[in-house]
Amino acid sequence: MKQIESIKEFGGLLNRYEHSSAVCHCTMTFSVYLPPKAETEKVPAVYWLSGLTCTDDNVRTKAGAQRYAAELGIALIMPDTSPRGDEVADESERYDLGKGAGFYVNATQAPWAAHYQMYDYVTRELPALVEAVLPLVPGLKSITGHSMGGHGALVCALKETGAYRSVSAFSPICHPSVCGWGEGCFSTYLGSDRETWKAYDATELVKAGAAEIPLLIDQGTNDEFLAEQLYPQDLQTACEARGFPLTLRRQEGYDHSYHFIATFIGEHLAYHAKALSD
Amino acid sequence: MKQIESIKEFGGLLNRYEHSSAVCHCTMTFSVYLPPKAETEKVPAVYWLSGLTCTDDNVRTKAGAQRYAAELGIALIMPDTSPRGDEVADESERYDLGKGAGFYVNATQAPWAAHYQMYDYVTRELPALVEAVLPLVPGLKSITGHSMGGHGALVCALKETGAYRSVSAFSPICHPSVCGWGEGCFSTYLGSDRETWKAYDATELVKAGAAEIPLLIDQGTNDEFLAEQLYPQDLQTACEARGFPLTLRRQEGYDHSYHFIATFIGEHLAYHAKALSD
Repeated sequence: MKQIESIKEFGGLLNRYEHSSAVCHCTMTFSVYLPPKAETEKVPAVYWLSGLTCTDDNVRTKAGAQRYAAELGIALIMPDTSPRGDEVADESERYDLGKGAGFYVNATQAPWAAHYQMYDYVTRELPALVEAVLPLVPGLKSITGHSMGGHGALVCALKETGAYRSVSAFSPICHPSVCGWGEGCFSTYLGSDRETWKAYDATELVKAGAAEIPLLIDQGTNDEFLAEQLYPQDLQTACEARGFPLTLRRQEGYDHSYHFIATFIGEHLAYHAKALSD
Repeated sequence: MKQIESIKEFGGLLNRYEHSSAVCHCTMTFSVYLPPKAETEKVPAVYWLSGLTCTDDNVRTKAGAQRYAAELGIALIMPDTSPRGDEVADESERYDLGKGAGFYVNATQAPWAAHYQMYDYVTRELPALVEAVLPLVPGLKSITGHSMGGHGALVCALKETGAYRSVSAFSPICHPSVCGWGEGCFSTYLGSDRETWKAYDATELVKAGAAEIPLLIDQGTNDEFLAEQLYPQDLQTACEARGFPLTLRRQEGYDHSYHFIATFIGEHLAYHAKALSD
């Protein structure tokens, strides 16, 4: 793990690292914001999973999250959205498949399976790596994200029982098995057997009996992808059917952009900070 | 003036407009953030002048300013950094001359003078335009900016006595007549007579007896352009020589990026909001 950039912000440090990933079999880049508090003690971490087309740079530049992380004394861990490099399979004509669109699954189909192991990367390899060398409290972490990354955050928290103190999401893809983005990636990375898709689908995981963890979701009502891709109503129905704790806030007039995220990221980080301090 | 985009953020509206500029003789694009308070009453405005290579989009995406503007009840007016369009003279190989590098001067040299009238644009045409149609208190405005835009903000406030309630700048080009960026643009837009450059040089304006207005400047000590381009020490010397009010804060460890701006924009906007409410 090699530090390739360090920028002072809100009294803390916004660092960027690259490392050779054992699960993705390529060089991966990620960013970490360390709050001022991390100079003197270990801090908890909130993982941010980004959406389609993003790298680690979008959230650190656009979300305004570092201000709150500095105030709350939490680190932000910001991974990339897919494996990278010339040797990594891609669909270069598409923004919603291949590089930038790892969908936080472990691919089983050739040629994708060789590198697209993003689920293991964000839930196992990356936490072990950063906890070993950065001033983080081992195992004390929460997770959030946006769109494809909101899907990723929900799925990680629903599958990894006890691993995350709290989870939230901005405009997540709630039922990827039935939307265009999800069908495209799942059929490519996981194959044509739709049963295998359910392991990475928040709505299906709730239906199948995932252990309870409260879900906090913000969804803009003017989101241009709401009707075709996100399906929060399916997740809501699945949660209501079994009394699964869901707070789904429909935010009037907000769209899918980082301006929406910026508006509510402070509330999400405060929510996670509280869970991480309990 | 035609609205081409509107995004809800922090309860207010981030709008983008285009209009036919009478002084720049081309279509100009700018952004405005209207805080929630502007729904029911007129609000004061803070103008943000951006740096080299920027459009109106950089600050609205990266600075985190809208959160504070919403809380403080002030509008943000974010113009472009130069005239635009196929008919506008340019040096397409250079980032520091031509489009994206208007330097907030009224050019006198051909072919630049036909469109590069950014000083009149930001001090006269744009304020008259937005005050006529948006919920702004006429004439109640302050100004700030970054790098080339910090230079612009200082020069506008030093030349337009009484027009701005307050002025501040992030890592401004304080003495453009003696740095590479300034010499390149001034010699191109204004010609070889260095006397004419002094009308757009904050250090020279202070020396020449500009009316007093307190200058607030934040400058990162790790700024990669500090030694070669910014010369805050020259402005400081000029201010000290005549007792001109300058608060120059050297911020330890910060660089030239929007992460630096994001860290201190809240303090700057609070400073302007106070001046605008006195």
